Amino acid sequence: MDRVLNFINKFFKNSKGDLNIFGKGIKVVIIFIVIKLLIKTTYKIIDKAMHSKKKGILYSDEKKLNTLSIVLKNIIKYIFYFIGLIMILDIFNIKTSSILATAGIGGLVIGIGAQSLVKDIITGFFILFEDQFSVGDYVKIGEYEGIVEELGVRVTKVRDFSGELHIIPNNNIGTVTNRARGAMRALVKVNVAYEEDINRVINVLNEVCKDIRKAHDNIVDGPNILGISDLGEYGIELTIVAKTNPMEQWGIEREIRKRVKEAFDRENIEIPYPKRVIYEKNPKE
Amino acid sequence: MDRVLNFINKFFKNSKGDLNIFGKGIKVVIIFIVIKLLIKTTYKIIDKAMHSKKKGILYSDEKKLNTLSIVLKNIIKYIFYFIGLIMILDIFNIKTSSILATAGIGGLVIGIGAQSLVKDIITGFFILFEDQFSVGDYVKIGEYEGIVEELGVRVTKVRDFSGELHIIPNNNIGTVTNRARGAMRALVKVNVAYEEDINRVINVLNEVCKDIRKAHDNIVDGPNILGISDLGEYGIELTIVAKTNPMEQWGIEREIRKRVKEAFDRENIEIPYPKRVIYEKNPKE
Amino acid sequence: MDRVLNFINKFFKNSKGDLNIFGKGIKVVIIFIVIKLLIKTTYKIIDKAMHSKKKGILYSDEKKLNTLSIVLKNIIKYIFYFIGLIMILDIFNIKTSSILATAGIGGLVIGIGAQSLVKDIITGFFILFEDQFSVGDYVKIGEYEGIVEELGVRVTKVRDFSGELHIIPNNNIGTVTNRARGAMRALVKVNVAYEEDINRVINVLNEVCKDIRKAHDNIVDGPNILGISDLGEYGIELTIVAKTNPMEQWGIEREIRKRVKEAFDRENIEIPYPKRVIYEKNPKE
Amino acid sequence: MDRVLNFINKFFKNSKGDLNIFGKGIKVVIIFIVIKLLIKTTYKIIDKAMHSKKKGILYSDEKKLNTLSIVLKNIIKYIFYFIGLIMILDIFNIKTSSILATAGIGGLVIGIGAQSLVKDIITGFFILFEDQFSVGDYVKIGEYEGIVEELGVRVTKVRDFSGELHIIPNNNIGTVTNRARGAMRALVKVNVAYEEDINRVINVLNEVCKDIRKAHDNIVDGPNILGISDLGEYGIELTIVAKTNPMEQWGIEREIRKRVKEAFDRENIEIPYPKRVIYEKNPKE
Amino acid sequence: MDRVLNFINKFFKNSKGDLNIFGKGIKVVIIFIVIKLLIKTTYKIIDKAMHSKKKGILYSDEKKLNTLSIVLKNIIKYIFYFIGLIMILDIFNIKTSSILATAGIGGLVIGIGAQSLVKDIITGFFILFEDQFSVGDYVKIGEYEGIVEELGVRVTKVRDFSGELHIIPNNNIGTVTNRARGAMRALVKVNVAYEEDINRVINVLNEVCKDIRKAHDNIVDGPNILGISDLGEYGIELTIVAKTNPMEQWGIEREIRKRVKEAFDRENIEIPYPKRVIYEKNPKE
Amino acid sequence: MDRVLNFINKFFKNSKGDLNIFGKGIKVVIIFIVIKLLIKTTYKIIDKAMHSKKKGILYSDEKKLNTLSIVLKNIIKYIFYFIGLIMILDIFNIKTSSILATAGIGGLVIGIGAQSLVKDIITGFFILFEDQFSVGDYVKIGEYEGIVEELGVRVTKVRDFSGELHIIPNNNIGTVTNRARGAMRALVKVNVAYEEDINRVINVLNEVCKDIRKAHDNIVDGPNILGISDLGEYGIELTIVAKTNPMEQWGIEREIRKRVKEAFDRENIEIPYPKRVIYEKNPKE
Amino acid sequence: MDRVLNFINKFFKNSKGDLNIFGKGIKVVIIFIVIKLLIKTTYKIIDKAMHSKKKGILYSDEKKLNTLSIVLKNIIKYIFYFIGLIMILDIFNIKTSSILATAGIGGLVIGIGAQSLVKDIITGFFILFEDQFSVGDYVKIGEYEGIVEELGVRVTKVRDFSGELHIIPNNNIGTVTNRARGAMRALVKVNVAYEEDINRVINVLNEVCKDIRKAHDNIVDGPNILGISDLGEYGIELTIVAKTNPMEQWGIEREIRKRVKEAFDRENIEIPYPKRVIYEKNPKE
Repeated sequence: MDRVLNFINKFFKNSKGDLNIFGKGIKVVIIFIVIKLLIKTTYKIIDKAMHSKKKGILYSDEKKLNTLSIVLKNIIKYIFYFIGLIMILDIFNIKTSSILATAGIGGLVIGIGAQSLVKDIITGFFILFEDQFSVGDYVKIGEYEGIVEELGVRVTKVRDFSGELHIIPNNNIGTVTNRARGAMRALVKVNVAYEEDINRVINVLNEVCKDIRKAHDNIVDGPNILGISDLGEYGIELTIVAKTNPMEQWGIEREIRKRVKEAFDRENIEIPYPKRVIYEKNPKE
Repeated sequence: MDRVLNFINKFFKNSKGDLNIFGKGIKVVIIFIVIKLLIKTTYKIIDKAMHSKKKGILYSDEKKLNTLSIVLKNIIKYIFYFIGLIMILDIFNIKTSSILATAGIGGLVIGIGAQSLVKDIITGFFILFEDQFSVGDYVKIGEYEGIVEELGVRVTKVRDFSGELHIIPNNNIGTVTNRARGAMRALVKVNVAYEEDINRVINVLNEVCKDIRKAHDNIVDGPNILGISDLGEYGIELTIVAKTNPMEQWGIEREIRKRVKEAFDRENIEIPYPKRVIYEKNPKE
Repeated sequence: MDRVLNFINKFFKNSKGDLNIFGKGIKVVIIFIVIKLLIKTTYKIIDKAMHSKKKGILYSDEKKLNTLSIVLKNIIKYIFYFIGLIMILDIFNIKTSSILATAGIGGLVIGIGAQSLVKDIITGFFILFEDQFSVGDYVKIGEYEGIVEELGVRVTKVRDFSGELHIIPNNNIGTVTNRARGAMRALVKVNVAYEEDINRVINVLNEVCKDIRKAHDNIVDGPNILGISDLGEYGIELTIVAKTNPMEQWGIEREIRKRVKEAFDRENIEIPYPKRVIYEKNPKE
Repeated sequence: MDRVLNFINKFFKNSKGDLNIFGKGIKVVIIFIVIKLLIKTTYKIIDKAMHSKKKGILYSDEKKLNTLSIVLKNIIKYIFYFIGLIMILDIFNIKTSSILATAGIGGLVIGIGAQSLVKDIITGFFILFEDQFSVGDYVKIGEYEGIVEELGVRVTKVRDFSGELHIIPNNNIGTVTNRARGAMRALVKVNVAYEEDINRVINVLNEVCKDIRKAHDNIVDGPNILGISDLGEYGIELTIVAKTNPMEQWGIEREIRKRVKEAFDRENIEIPYPKRVIYEKNPKE
Repeated sequence: MDRVLNFINKFFKNSKGDLNIFGKGIKVVIIFIVIKLLIKTTYKIIDKAMHSKKKGILYSDEKKLNTLSIVLKNIIKYIFYFIGLIMILDIFNIKTSSILATAGIGGLVIGIGAQSLVKDIITGFFILFEDQFSVGDYVKIGEYEGIVEELGVRVTKVRDFSGELHIIPNNNIGTVTNRARGAMRALVKVNVAYEEDINRVINVLNEVCKDIRKAHDNIVDGPNILGISDLGEYGIELTIVAKTNPMEQWGIEREIRKRVKEAFDRENIEIPYPKRVIYEKNPKE
Repeated sequence: MDRVLNFINKFFKNSKGDLNIFGKGIKVVIIFIVIKLLIKTTYKIIDKAMHSKKKGILYSDEKKLNTLSIVLKNIIKYIFYFIGLIMILDIFNIKTSSILATAGIGGLVIGIGAQSLVKDIITGFFILFEDQFSVGDYVKIGEYEGIVEELGVRVTKVRDFSGELHIIPNNNIGTVTNRARGAMRALVKVNVAYEEDINRVINVLNEVCKDIRKAHDNIVDGPNILGISDLGEYGIELTIVAKTNPMEQWGIEREIRKRVKEAFDRENIEIPYPKRVIYEKNPKE
Repeated sequence: MDRVLNFINKFFKNSKGDLNIFGKGIKVVIIFIVIKLLIKTTYKIIDKAMHSKKKGILYSDEKKLNTLSIVLKNIIKYIFYFIGLIMILDIFNIKTSSILATAGIGGLVIGIGAQSLVKDIITGFFILFEDQFSVGDYVKIGEYEGIVEELGVRVTKVRDFSGELHIIPNNNIGTVTNRARGAMRALVKVNVAYEEDINRVINVLNEVCKDIRKAHDNIVDGPNILGISDLGEYGIELTIVAKTNPMEQWGIEREIRKRVKEAFDRENIEIPYPKRVIYEKNPKE
């Protein structure tokens, strides 16, 4: 046993116990092989991740995926080469602190610069995982609202009613307001003159509500009169509220407005214009 | 004793006192076993935490929990593998500072990017722990208000009266206004003309207040007239205040408005329209 | 002497002067005992701190305290275990830089994420220490105002007049406006028509002020007429000011308004409606 | 074998096993050569990157490219020289921690200062890669909107309709609103007097819509009347909506307005002026 | 000499030249003593600082000072104990990097959390040192204004005219507006009708200015008429300006307003009401 | 060979292989010389950079340049001295970690404090390099606009039309709006009464546009009538648009306005005053 | 030679080649002396800097300077003592990493806290160096404007026209608007009725401009009529512009207004009151 060990020692180490050139050479070869293997393994992981994502809703574009995968592979390859280089230098007792420091500062600066990219991806993952919204939902994100068209790794695309396409970095997505989860509220405020009999108005409106409920089956909870929501400057404000299927609330609101107008015309109930009481005086007397 | 020690030394260490290949091999095996054990232990802790949370109100969705647990386990597994790798390299005297530096910068960048996730979880924990609000409470968080529907580890879901679902990252939750803890205030401001006798108006309103108090038992502290809250441009503003059960304040406010309107009609008290005094003059004379 | 030392050396150290397995074993045992002792000591300190706080106004809820103390103890236990593990690994010459780096980055990320918690506690301490406000004070913190209900380690609870409970993380508390320290000012602005004799108006108002001073003993410094605070669009603005006990200022303001209105009715002084001078012209001539 | 190794050792190392001056000299020469090679390689990579970019849409200006490449090469050259210097000092056992610390702080400060530059480039890359917008698109970026004139590595140039050229650092580009992807909406709001028969008005407007649809083929989805969008202070607000080709929406809106005006003139439908109801009273009676 | 040295070496060091247990024990005792001495010295410095501050205007409250000093002493004591512990462990060759890393991260997080405290103190020092304001001055700090009541190490207390006490962390104090350093300006804007003779009005106002200058000796620079500051919608705006002693400007402004009103009444100069020219037309003809 | 090496070793190194005092002395002298040489080289580089900049548009002021160069040289000198000092201490085996740590923290704090300076210079470089604007251009930077008067290394000076000189740190320059690159748009909105015949108005305006096109040769693209841009409260809004040479747009706008006014006078087209429809009613009946 | 070296070695070093107590003692003494010398040198530099600054415009107050110098000297003294202590501990092989870590974190926290101080000084230096403004200039800094009264190392004092003294930390100074560099613009907008002949009005105004130019010699570029700047709701807006000496613009503006008013009175040109066209209708018919 001892002799074998001695033989190995003698061959690879010099009299001081440090590795000699042969020992070091073998180490270099091993590092080279390991680095190569690691690069190949990482390539495979990237390919696999890309293909599994392909099946999902992210980046449906084949060409973009390939570009992305090539860029990623290149970056990883160079990082591994760099690590290998430093390790080999270390074997030959050349201090690499200066290279590490330079690369470290460079890497840190690029890393901090690329941080919003990391945040984009993390936020994107959680939106998907928590199912905050899905393609086709009508959402409000910050000051932008519209229908979600694409939910990507880095950006979310939302199309406004006006046709504009908002491209929002996931990182900018804080609070999301989803308007496609559950019944939406249609709300119409109606002004009537102070001179009207408030109970008669309510009766008329109740009739209108009943009619609308019958005519539309996308209403979840029939239009109801909440009551007097304000004693305003020019008249009494009454509020009518209904629950509808998502995205139908605006149509119902317009319908309520039209029917109220027709009923008021029929029943001769005044929607008040701004009113003013005038006292006429002679100048400065 | 000495001989046993010498035997061990001879077998595992070379003449320089450093470990020989056998000694190093044993160390590697031990590290391998320890890493495996640690991974298994961490898996168990995760499983346990997941199951205890399942009982609570967080993430009721079984499938999501499993996904989350698999993701977590994978991340932890790779971190432990990475640590093991570095330790083994250290045993063979290969300097790992370059790998550590690279991984360190990468980890720091991802870590800082994932920071808002950490903040989400910490804030979420404190909301639960301090019982700031619970599911069903009517709250205001920043610019969003509504009824809490879900209080999760990372996000809180609040449903607006308009039916919109606000998904708020816990991290974005600063000051919380809880409107379901204690009696709420109903407040109605009534304008009467300067020409009215202020004491008669107050008497009439007092009668109204008494009637409302009798008619509604969700009022905690009966509607009272605070007094003249403003000498406005067009009239005197009187304020009526009541304390009600939570979420009933708006109904009571509408009720007060309706009763005041009816009483004023009955008593012939004028709610003033905007008034203006006009001096007519001849042009530039 | 020498021999004793030699004996010790021989038993615990090998021929190279490094500790042998026995020497190392003893070190491990000592570290194990010290860690255990430190954990117990820390437990006692936590228990003591919890009980002393219990007497104060912080966290009156026994159950919450126990939960908090268990969470804290667990965190500390695992940190000590982790330190112990690293020290033992160091004794066996296994490099732990990779573990330290991983844990360091993890700890830093969690630490930075938990920073607002640290700030909450520090700010909370100073609010208490400097007696910025106490439970029952009427304060304004940022955009929230109301009566302080609870002054906790992490959050301050303020109840609004509208009954809403604002739960403010101490960290969000910057400038505090305390409205319960010293006399408050009641301020009423009264408009009179340009046509009135300004000195007669001031005399009438002085009478009103005297009457109010007599009738109310919660006034610290009697209502005074400051003078003409504006030559407005429609009339002359006079300002009446009084100093009252805290929280009484609004009542006094309403009282002043009512008395001024009655005096003006009595004395026939006009509170001016918006006025306008009209020149009538024929269209485009 | 042994003898060769001994010879090498004797020649390059002194009796203590450290390298002697000859051994060190060889190391220095090797470092010098490697540094030179690395600089040349980096130069080639830069040249290649510059030329490949030249073909693209970035920096079409040859002269700027050369300046940029010279600046970049100089910076890289000095960094490599610096690294080489430190490595040589290390070989001669002169501690370089002070130089590294000084350079590290300097580099970090410059790096953090140049961070927005890194962010500019990363954001620029993603805008190109994700095809968020291309030259000629009409976009809105933050508060600036206009037609994209140049999409550079560091800045994006957008020309406003008013002719102004906005030069936006890519780093400042968050959410992008692209108005050239898909049909745009033309929206016209029309007010009619409360006195009008609402159904007759809708019929007239329907005729107008049909005529416009026929006359213009840049309309994707014909102008439709959504219904009553508001019961306003002075009249009923009707909303007409059409989908058009991008950038044509404003023209269609102006066309709709003109045709509506003409139809209303023809059909004698009133577009209401602000209205007011006046009650004349005698002063204070 | 040699023998003495040898004796010392033999007694304290083992054959390898490392310190033996006796040598290490002595080092531990020395560290223990030094730590104790340092703690006592720091205590004395704190006590001294506290007493010198007591004489100043900071923290007049004896009890608070004692609490603060006890807290400070405890923190310092534990820090010194911690340093001593690490040094002793180092003597016994137990690697302390894990403890240092743990404590370092903890300290950094607490330190960053306590940073606003550091800023409070530094800003407080400079406010005092630069004499930006002193107790009794009328200042404006951010959105808060009032009379300075206390200028503390950490907070500044400002009492508003409305009696509210603003407690502002020094850290929040950016630009300070001091209104008690030098003469203040009283500024009154007077509107006269376009129909008035502008030169006659200026003469009348000049008379008023002269009278005021005579009557008040807290005016530094007499009220002057600047001229026509606006050709407004309803009339010509003239501006009167005076320089007064600090805090007297509002009184002077009210006085100027009153005297101008009386002079205009006397001289029959019109302060214009809003004016409007009316063209009457028949509906749509 | 061996003997020479031995001689050198004996002379400069002691029996332990460490450098003796002579060896160390030589190292110190070398460091001293190298530091001196580096300082001189840096001085030359600074002088060169200063002179090359002098030729450019930056800092035309000779005196400022000298001051700047002296300050820079002093800072660099002291940094090199500091590095030299640490290296010499290291040679004599005096640990310098405490000095490095102290200087490192100091340097970091100053560096971070001076960061905005670094950003100023980097941004300044890119403004020049990308030719974002040049002296004499009319630009808008943030809320400031005017003609660029100086484009410096650290600040940009912009003179407003009102004569004010805005001195903007380059760091504050984000998006730049350059109004001197390409034709500018003149835009005039004209209101005509609803009663007018819209086609006749357009014809009249077309005549006006033709006349203006003929009369002015600084118009790039003749004034055109876009169409009806709004159906407003009081009238129909028509928009006229022209493209002019930079800085001429305001003059053209004023010219268009004047000619439109004259044409409307001639053609008797009404520019509508605010209109209102009045219903007179008896009070509350 | 050898013998001398051996003698030195024997006296100062023990048999292991490490310094013995005598050798260490001498090192300690040297460190002590060097630290003392460095402190004295720094004191002298501070004194010199203070005296050179005294001559300048910074800190004219002798007493403040002394306080500042004492504080600075104390801080530097303790930092040097601390460095010396660590170096001595290092000589006696006591690991100081724990002390360095503790002091490092403390220093970093204080340093970051004091960072705005560093920024104050750097910004202050550049304001002076670039001559952005000097004492007596009328400037606008952020939201504050007035005449510069003091330009200090840390703060700039600006006195408002209202007499208020704004004390602005230099750090808060971003963009500076200097209103005392070059001619200022006086701008007066005049409204005339639509009914007026626009050419006659312009002739009248031209006469007024000529008269003003003659009467005032602080006008750099005579008042000119720019043309019609708006076709407003009630009239035509004409703009008159002049260039004046700094600070004279407001006086000239008031003068222009007065002369225009007098000329219009003379020439019977109407400055229009708000106008309205009224259509009277019967209620709802």
